[in-house]
Amino acid sequence: MSSTAGQVIKCKAAVAWEAGKPLVIEEVELAPPQANEVRMKILFTALCHTDVYFWEAKGQTPMFPRIFGHEAGGIVESVGEGVTELQPGDHVLPIFTGECGKCSHCKSEESNLCDTLRINTERGVLLNDGKTRFSKNGQPIYHFLGTSTFSEYTIAHAGCVAKINPEAPLDKVCVLSCGVSTGMGATLNVAKPKKGQSVAVFGLGAVGLAACEGARMAGAGRIIGVDLNPDRFNEAKKFGVTDFVNPKDHDKPVQEVIAEMTNGGVDRAVECTGSFQAMISAFECVHDGWGVAVLVGVPNKDDAFKTHPLNFLNERTLKGTFFGNYKPRTDIPARVEKYMQKELELEKFITHSVPFSEINKAFDYMLKGESIRCVIRMDA
Amino acid sequence: MSSTAGQVIKCKAAVAWEAGKPLVIEEVELAPPQANEVRMKILFTALCHTDVYFWEAKGQTPMFPRIFGHEAGGIVESVGEGVTELQPGDHVLPIFTGECGKCSHCKSEESNLCDTLRINTERGVLLNDGKTRFSKNGQPIYHFLGTSTFSEYTIAHAGCVAKINPEAPLDKVCVLSCGVSTGMGATLNVAKPKKGQSVAVFGLGAVGLAACEGARMAGAGRIIGVDLNPDRFNEAKKFGVTDFVNPKDHDKPVQEVIAEMTNGGVDRAVECTGSFQAMISAFECVHDGWGVAVLVGVPNKDDAFKTHPLNFLNERTLKGTFFGNYKPRTDIPARVEKYMQKELELEKFITHSVPFSEINKAFDYMLKGESIRCVIRMDA
Ligand SMILES: NC(=O)c1ccc[n+]([C@@H]2O[C@H](COP(=O)([O-])OP(=O)(O)OC[C@H]3O[C@@H](n4cnc5c(N)ncnc54)[C@H](O)[C@@H]3O)[C@@H](O)[C@H]2O)c1
Ligand SMILES: NC(=O)c1ccc[n+]([C@@H]2O[C@H](COP(=O)([O-])OP(=O)(O)OC[C@H]3O[C@@H](n4cnc5c(N)ncnc54)[C@H](O)[C@@H]3O)[C@@H](O)[C@H]2O)c1
Ligand SMILES: [Zn+2]
Ligand SMILES: [Zn+2]
Ligand SMILES: [Zn+2]
Ligand SMILES: [Zn+2]
Repeated sequence: MSSTAGQVIKCKAAVAWEAGKPLVIEEVELAPPQANEVRMKILFTALCHTDVYFWEAKGQTPMFPRIFGHEAGGIVESVGEGVTELQPGDHVLPIFTGECGKCSHCKSEESNLCDTLRINTERGVLLNDGKTRFSKNGQPIYHFLGTSTFSEYTIAHAGCVAKINPEAPLDKVCVLSCGVSTGMGATLNVAKPKKGQSVAVFGLGAVGLAACEGARMAGAGRIIGVDLNPDRFNEAKKFGVTDFVNPKDHDKPVQEVIAEMTNGGVDRAVECTGSFQAMISAFECVHDGWGVAVLVGVPNKDDAFKTHPLNFLNERTLKGTFFGNYKPRTDIPARVEKYMQKELELEKFITHSVPFSEINKAFDYMLKGESIRCVIRMDA
Repeated sequence: MSSTAGQVIKCKAAVAWEAGKPLVIEEVELAPPQANEVRMKILFTALCHTDVYFWEAKGQTPMFPRIFGHEAGGIVESVGEGVTELQPGDHVLPIFTGECGKCSHCKSEESNLCDTLRINTERGVLLNDGKTRFSKNGQPIYHFLGTSTFSEYTIAHAGCVAKINPEAPLDKVCVLSCGVSTGMGATLNVAKPKKGQSVAVFGLGAVGLAACEGARMAGAGRIIGVDLNPDRFNEAKKFGVTDFVNPKDHDKPVQEVIAEMTNGGVDRAVECTGSFQAMISAFECVHDGWGVAVLVGVPNKDDAFKTHPLNFLNERTLKGTFFGNYKPRTDIPARVEKYMQKELELEKFITHSVPFSEINKAFDYMLKGESIRCVIRMDA
C-alpha cells in the first residue's frame, strides 16, 4: 500500500485554461480513485492529434479548464473499490476507450466498441459520479477521454487501463495507447493483407505510418503511400513504403492512377486521413473480386461517403475500424510483447522528446508537421 | 458419339423478334460447337427477371432477334475442340457467368468474377469467333448471357457449364442456375450469419427468398423480411421469415424501425431489391461493432450509395456479391448435392410450370408478380 493511497495527491499537471492557448504547468489536486477507478503515476506521455484538435476546440463546444493527454505509460499508485485485476505497482497503459467485459460488444469476438466505456470526447468527467477528480483551489478541472495524462498523476476507469509487462520501456510502449495501435490494427486486424499482397495507405501521419508498419509485419509485397504532402514521403521510406503517389501530381483521380499501377487495383487499402475524398478513393482503388478497404480517419459532421453501388457488387468490401479493432485490456499487452520480441518497431515513430516543463514544444512540433510522435518525460 | 455431332441441328426455339412482344416458337438452325464450346439439349428452363428486363429492353440498346433464357438444366449433345471436362450425356446446368480456371479471379479463393467469362449482358454473340450459332433462314439470331436456354438445343462456352449429379431431377435443380444460388450464396458465402443471429432481407422476390433460405440453412435466429409489397409476406412465411416490415407502414426510416426491433441493429442484412434506398437502409440497419450488409440488387446507372462515413467507422462492413460468390463449375455441383441431401429446399421456389408451347404464360405470371419461378418443360 503506497503512503498516498486514500489521500488527495497534489501534483503538477499541464492545464489548458483556454482554447488554443499554451498549457500552463500548475499544481493541482487529484482526489482518490472511486469504485472501479485506478490512480496512476504517469512516467511518459505522447502528444496525439486528437489532443491538439480538442485543445484548438474549433467547431466544438469548448470545455475548459481541461487536462489533455491520452497516450501514456505509468505505474498504478492505488485502486478504488471493486478493482481486482490491477494493484499498486503494476505497469500500465491508460487507454481512451475501454472494455467493461460485460456488454454485448465486449462479449463479441469482433467488436471493441464497449457500450459503457467506448470513447466519448464530449465527456469531461468520470463515469462513477459524473464529476471531475482534478481541481485547483476548489475549481474543477475537466478530464479528457477519461485519461488526462498530461499530469504527474491521473485517474482512469479500470476498464481503460491495460496491464503490461513490467520489463517494457514505458518511454517507447506509451505510443501504443492510441495512434500506433490504431493504424497497425487497421491493417493487421481489419484489412488483413495476405503475404505478398499490395496495400495502399492514404495519409502518412502517425496513424498511416502505423498502417504501413502493419503492412510490413503482414509481409505485404508492395506498400503504396498516398499523401498530398510530399514532405511525408521521405519519412515513410523507413516504414517500408515502396511507392508514393501524390494525388496533386495527376490529372485523373488517384484511384485510377493506383489501378493502373497495380493491374486493376490494390488488394487492400487503408484510409488514415479524415478526408472523405480520400475515403472514396481508398474504396474505389481496391481490386474487384477481393479488394478490401478500411476507413480509419475521423470525418467531419457533414461529410458523406458516396460511390456507385456497382463498386460493391463487383465484390469489393468496405469496413471501418476504431482503435484498430483492438480490445484495450485484452489485446494491448500482447502488442507490447510484439515490441519486446522486436517484431514491431516503435522507435521510428518517436521523432522527438521533451521534458514536461516544455510540453508546449510538443504542440509546436506537431502543428508544424515536424514530428510523428513527441514523447514527454514527466520526471524531467 | 451422338448422331447429330458435327451437324447443324434444326430445333424449336422461342425467338424474341421485338422488344416486349410475345416470343414466337420457331424452327431455328444451331451450328455445331466451336473450340471450347458445348452443345446441349435443354430439358427444363425457368424464367428469371433478367430475361424479362432485357426482353422489355427499356433504356437499353435493343438487340433482336434474340433467344433469351439462362436458368436451365440439360444434357450434353456434343463438345467442341479442346473440351476435356465434359462429354456427351453429361447432365449439366448452363450458367450466365463462367469460370475459365486461369485468370487471377479464377485462381483467387475469394472471387468468382472471371476476367474472360464474367456476365456480359451487352454481348449477343459467342466469344470464340464473335458470331452467333443460331440462325433462321440465314438470319443470325443473337444469344443472351451466353446461354439462350429458351431453345431445345443451345451452345455455351464450356467454362459456363456445370456438370452435375445425373440422378438430380433437372426440373428442380435448373433453378440453381441463377436467382436461387445468388440469394442463397449472398447469405451463406458473404453475409455468413452465425447460428442464432438475426438477418434482415430486403426484397422478397426469388433472390430475396433464396437469401432467406440461406439464412434458414445457416440457423439464423430471426429472419426479418422487408418489402414494399405486402403480398410478398404470405409466401415468405414458407421461407422461415419470422418478422415482416413494410417501410410504407412507418413514418421513420426503416433502418430505425429495424434497429428498435433488434436492440440496436441486425447482425446481417442482405439487399435483394435493386433500389439504392434499400441498399442504404440495409447498410444502416446492421448493428455497430459487427454488423455485415451485403448488396445483391442491380442498381440503375445513375444511382449513388450514400451514407455518413461514421457508419463505417463504427465497425460495420459492406460488401457486394455477384452470383452469391459461387464459382459456377467448382461450386454449383455441391449445391445440387445439398438439394439431394434435402438440406436445401427448391420445391418452394417453383410455383408454376408450363409446356414450352406456352412460354409466354411464364412472362405473364412474372409480370403480374404471381410466380416465384415458373419452370418451362421443353419436351411438352
Ligand atoms: N478510427 C480511430 O480509432 C482513430 C484513432 C486515431 C486517429 N484517427 C484518425 O486518423 C486520421 C489520421 O490521424 P493522424 O494522426 O495520422 O493525422 P495526420 O494529420 O498526422 O495525418 C494525416 C495525413 O493525411 C494527409 N491527407 C489529408 N487529406 C488527404 C487526401 N485527400 N489524400 C491523401 N492524403 C491526405 C495529410 O497530408 C496528412 O499527412 C485522423 O482523421 C484521425 O482523427 C482515427
Ligand atoms: N448480384 C447478382 O448476381 C444478381 C443475380 C440475380 C438478380 N440480381 C438482382 O437482385 C434483385 C432482386 O431480383 P428478384 O428477381 O428477386 O427481383 P423481384 O423484382 O422479384 O423482387 C424484388 C423485390 O424488392 C421489393 N422492393 C423494391 N424496392 C424496395 C424497397 N425500397 N424496399 C423494400 N423492398 C423493395 C419489390 O417489392 C420486390 O418484391 C434485382 O435487382 C436483380 O437484378 C442480382
Ligand atoms: Zn463493454
Ligand atoms: Zn490519439
Ligand atoms: Zn477466369
Ligand atoms: Zn437470372
